[in-house]
Amino acid sequence: MVDRPSFWLDEGSIQLLDQRVLPLNTFIITAETIPEQVEAISTLAVRGAPAIGTFGALSLALSINRGEDEKAAYQQLHGSRPTAVDLSNCLNIVMGVYRSDGDEACLEAALGLMEDTIRSCRKIGEHGRYLIGNNSRIMTHCNAGALATLDWGTALSPIRVRAREGGSPFVWVSETRPLLQGSRLTAWELLNEGIDHRIVVDGSAGHLMSKDEVDLVIVGSDRVAANGDIANKIGTLEKAVLAREFGIPFYVAFPKTTIDPECPSGDRIPIEVRSDLEITSIHGSRIAPEGSGAYGPAFDVTPSGYITGYITEDGVLSKDELVSSIKK
Amino acid sequence: MVDRPSFWLDEGSIQLLDQRVLPLNTFIITAETIPEQVEAISTLAVRGAPAIGTFGALSLALSINRGEDEKAAYQQLHGSRPTAVDLSNCLNIVMGVYRSDGDEACLEAALGLMEDTIRSCRKIGEHGRYLIGNNSRIMTHCNAGALATLDWGTALSPIRVRAREGGSPFVWVSETRPLLQGSRLTAWELLNEGIDHRIVVDGSAGHLMSKDEVDLVIVGSDRVAANGDIANKIGTLEKAVLAREFGIPFYVAFPKTTIDPECPSGDRIPIEVRSDLEITSIHGSRIAPEGSGAYGPAFDVTPSGYITGYITEDGVLSKDELVSSIKK
Repeated sequence: MVDRPSFWLDEGSIQLLDQRVLPLNTFIITAETIPEQVEAISTLAVRGAPAIGTFGALSLALSINRGEDEKAAYQQLHGSRPTAVDLSNCLNIVMGVYRSDGDEACLEAALGLMEDTIRSCRKIGEHGRYLIGNNSRIMTHCNAGALATLDWGTALSPIRVRAREGGSPFVWVSETRPLLQGSRLTAWELLNEGIDHRIVVDGSAGHLMSKDEVDLVIVGSDRVAANGDIANKIGTLEKAVLAREFGIPFYVAFPKTTIDPECPSGDRIPIEVRSDLEITSIHGSRIAPEGSGAYGPAFDVTPSGYITGYITEDGVLSKDELVSSIKK
Repeated sequence: MVDRPSFWLDEGSIQLLDQRVLPLNTFIITAETIPEQVEAISTLAVRGAPAIGTFGALSLALSINRGEDEKAAYQQLHGSRPTAVDLSNCLNIVMGVYRSDGDEACLEAALGLMEDTIRSCRKIGEHGRYLIGNNSRIMTHCNAGALATLDWGTALSPIRVRAREGGSPFVWVSETRPLLQGSRLTAWELLNEGIDHRIVVDGSAGHLMSKDEVDLVIVGSDRVAANGDIANKIGTLEKAVLAREFGIPFYVAFPKTTIDPECPSGDRIPIEVRSDLEITSIHGSRIAPEGSGAYGPAFDVTPSGYITGYITEDGVLSKDELVSSIKK
């Protein structure tokens, strides 16, 4: 059962909650063609590594069902965002099924991936909940919740599970400039679930950690390299460095679809650079002077040395456990 | 000569550039009464530690000239913002002159403080320029420019001096949420002076430093404790921790009016907490869900151990040199 779907299949097209306009507007939009689905991914109507992975898989399966050229659909979807490896991994799974079992098996495979993601995220919560005390104060960054997956979330799943068991976790929501996935999406999810939280600017993590206001940090990931380095939303590396400086555990939560066995280390992960306008304007109105440019890498890489543990569907793993579990 | 005044005396009232609406609008406003001047400070129409210090001094002197109760004026101005000590220091200087030399000497004292600040900032630039190579890439945070002082600035003064000598410094402008003094004000100053720069989100400092894109960090300060700890805009501590982690020098620039000899260490500096609305809305439009709260400390404290050097009107000082120069 899916309580909080970020998208779903509806008679040959995909319905999705438009994450570009949350929380001010709750719009359900339809993406039926590959160009519409690519646009939904590249403009962040659907976002979060596991969500765009399964959304891509479903888009490809539907395209194959319509009898379209599967290679063209694959290429367009594959190029829609570069950093999250789940998209590539999930598209490859559907293509593999297509080659081995033909077009009729593809939709089932895509729906199976969606089910698997939900189950994995639930397990991430069940394993991760032991890291969270009754009144733990958890800092998170960006949105690694139900909206970023399909349900439960990755970083938010342990918090959700702990709260449902009667705990009272408190969440410091890092707002996550430029696109404010923290204050727009994570806060919205926590509010809907009655989990106590406060939004803070990204630059306040050091202050809060130095004042002993943070017990642990949990973030999601867009790609995990074979050596345990991870890529996640810009600003994650800072929180990892600060957490180590102030003696605070730093965890990364993700399902196996986020692992890239072909990527030897973090410095090989492609980092998407997005438009200046995401930084120099908000809600369409200009902030910065006309004539001043910006630089907008959307992700950064946190080396494994800063990471206390990896919360996966198989349990909370050390770096060595994670690395040895990755099949090259 | 003042090239870039943030405020000036005009026939018994103060004219100021309204920093709340820059860079989209360049409005000159008038603050004539103590309530108007207090509002200008507390709403950040005038801001920056040295600027609000001298603005407060001028406001108090004008009030005394009008024959108003000097103690009431002092109290109201003194309470308008808590963290920057320049305000308190400059008000105390005018009150001292009033007690020793009477009301007629006060305006001259306030104008003298303004002259001193401009001279000190210029000297900060002349000393600090030796830290900046021909093509140095400097990261700064918030606005510690002419707008925050009266001319030249503190952190920006060495960059300005180096550029005028024919150097080509490049500045990474940290946007500085929540009020965006970086993207609104620092970018505007640099653009006006033709100094190359790019705006980045606050969370990107770690990424840029880890990629060897930053040669040094220079920030201003709102209060320097007697042990060399400093308070500055929220987000400064993070840049200091990251700079040390990645082997990058971290400098703090300020005139002597920013030193608080009575404050033994950073943990005794009062940290202003501002309204939730500064975080949950931008340009008057809501970002976060209704019902989600925020927490908005406006400053943080950077312990002296993270600071490479202090750029003052007396030269670039080590911690020991700074501490021994502070008269208790």
